[in-house]
Amino acid sequence: MKEATLKQIAETLGISITTVSKALKNYPDVSDKTRKAVHELADSLQYKPNSFAVNLRMQESRTIGVIIPELVHHFFSSVIDGIVAEAEKHGYLVIIQQSNESVVMEKSQVELLLNKRVDGIVMSLSNESNDDEHLKELLRRNVPFVQFDKISKLLNSSKVIIDDQKAACEATTHLIHKGCKKIAHIRGPVNPQNAIDRFLGYKKGLEKHDIPFDPSLVYTCSRVSFEEGKAFAAQILKEHPDVDGIFCITDLVAVGVLAYFNEQKIPVPQQVKVIGFSNWFMSQVITPSLSTVEQPSYEMGTAAFNVLLEEINARKENRVREPKTVRLETQIIERESTRG
Amino acid sequence: MKEATLKQIAETLGISITTVSKALKNYPDVSDKTRKAVHELADSLQYKPNSFAVNLRMQESRTIGVIIPELVHHFFSSVIDGIVAEAEKHGYLVIIQQSNESVVMEKSQVELLLNKRVDGIVMSLSNESNDDEHLKELLRRNVPFVQFDKISKLLNSSKVIIDDQKAACEATTHLIHKGCKKIAHIRGPVNPQNAIDRFLGYKKGLEKHDIPFDPSLVYTCSRVSFEEGKAFAAQILKEHPDVDGIFCITDLVAVGVLAYFNEQKIPVPQQVKVIGFSNWFMSQVITPSLSTVEQPSYEMGTAAFNVLLEEINARKENRVREPKTVRLETQIIERESTRG
Repeated sequence: MKEATLKQIAETLGISITTVSKALKNYPDVSDKTRKAVHELADSLQYKPNSFAVNLRMQESRTIGVIIPELVHHFFSSVIDGIVAEAEKHGYLVIIQQSNESVVMEKSQVELLLNKRVDGIVMSLSNESNDDEHLKELLRRNVPFVQFDKISKLLNSSKVIIDDQKAACEATTHLIHKGCKKIAHIRGPVNPQNAIDRFLGYKKGLEKHDIPFDPSLVYTCSRVSFEEGKAFAAQILKEHPDVDGIFCITDLVAVGVLAYFNEQKIPVPQQVKVIGFSNWFMSQVITPSLSTVEQPSYEMGTAAFNVLLEEINARKENRVREPKTVRLETQIIERESTRG
Repeated sequence: MKEATLKQIAETLGISITTVSKALKNYPDVSDKTRKAVHELADSLQYKPNSFAVNLRMQESRTIGVIIPELVHHFFSSVIDGIVAEAEKHGYLVIIQQSNESVVMEKSQVELLLNKRVDGIVMSLSNESNDDEHLKELLRRNVPFVQFDKISKLLNSSKVIIDDQKAACEATTHLIHKGCKKIAHIRGPVNPQNAIDRFLGYKKGLEKHDIPFDPSLVYTCSRVSFEEGKAFAAQILKEHPDVDGIFCITDLVAVGVLAYFNEQKIPVPQQVKVIGFSNWFMSQVITPSLSTVEQPSYEMGTAAFNVLLEEINARKENRVREPKTVRLETQIIERESTRG
């Protein structure tokens, strides 16, 4: 698209480019008459200052990058919602990238964002992220960087998280208080910190109530999907027909468990009680409605943006700043799947 | 963050900036020795060409803007998923903006994206978009622009759409074939073209089967929400207790209808059959599962990006190009809510 330039305005009015530039910035050494003529012509030509040139001068892009595992996931779209809304308030644009749980994608996306000179990066790690050289590189280069939800504890960056261990312990305790004595856990993959912490919280919940931990009651998802929920429900019934409670890594998996139990006419909560994690919208509309752990996703997004902004501003002012960890509160939501 | 510059490399090696620049681009008039020294130093300093400067020269940002009404909406997050994946393949970055159904927001977002000199814009209009001056402006300025889903027919831009009228006629016909004789329609707001078209499709479906159109059977959402679905279900039962079929503007509203009927023990599909639109994930996991119209959301995203890329390339090559409309196929998905 053709754009009006300073040069074009200068030539049309027969004045210098410097004078046009000064007139547009309302410098006092330009006559009122010239200033008015320049502004009028600029308006009629729909002149816009070239933002690349402006950015080049300012060395900031007022754009941030966000990398998440997947967007079609109620939790992440709600976090993004919070990031975009908060960024908008502060005049920042948001570039979204999806790693699709692949560390190779994640690396090339970090690279691309750095080449774009974004002012900072907010990120939830892919499940494969045992290789974190690209993230250490961000820290070495002093790029403003905030991790959220799926984080690496080994990276000394700012973080916005929940206390997964505590929340999982509470979910397990909730099942125990509802009378469950043999509780299975459908856990997330081996790598992600939040899957590890929820598993540890489950174990701790059992221990606190003197229920012996039985490793054969733990089932490990690889894709954390609805289909895996259905498949593990079938396997649990077969291997441990006397299980009376199931704590699932996330609502999507729990909904798969409920779907299988509905098909098999296994009464929930009478025979088995089920609790999920994250409070997806659908959990309140399915039958039976699903008990879960409310995770403040939108707030996680606004907090992540604000911590990133603090990081950006500290660097602008050449302040040294220790990484900050924001821990948001969770709570148990009781619905039909654990009632009674 | 401090970045290595051409100047720094030149000073360290005692050569000119021009020589450094030429060496990095492997120009033949630089000696092998110098070229090697420059590359090695650039690597060790982790030098990256400044992308603002590069963009300024190329006059392209390889970034596109996407404006949607809301992200926490299964349909839109799936479209974005398609856009981001396709853009990634072609080396483009995607800036996401949410209008929250406000035309004021939409205008300032378009402005912001233009100031950022994005290479093009993909957009689904807000429900308020009776004021479209900012969009006409895009066309006047010849900005690559593609509308999808919620479009304005009055804007002569490229579009990626489904045939809402045909799909709604098929949904209504599906209810009629299942034996429904008195069919209510919970429609979308007055403005959006897709709400108008789905309403017209409903009318057409009735006409084709000689069922007289009764305007009192049409209920108009303002927010298109789960809560409105519940409220209208109650109102329909009160005003028209003999209604035996309901066609809803979208699955979210239909899920609200089903939730109310579940609460009131109104048997679905025996007493009333319900069909939605869009095929949200939750529609297959609720009880009863929801019949709906499958709308290819991910494909809509990839198609929207590809049409935008054609628009961008045509302008690069100074080709005149007529706006293009891509129409994607839909299909009825029968589940429990209309079965039998």
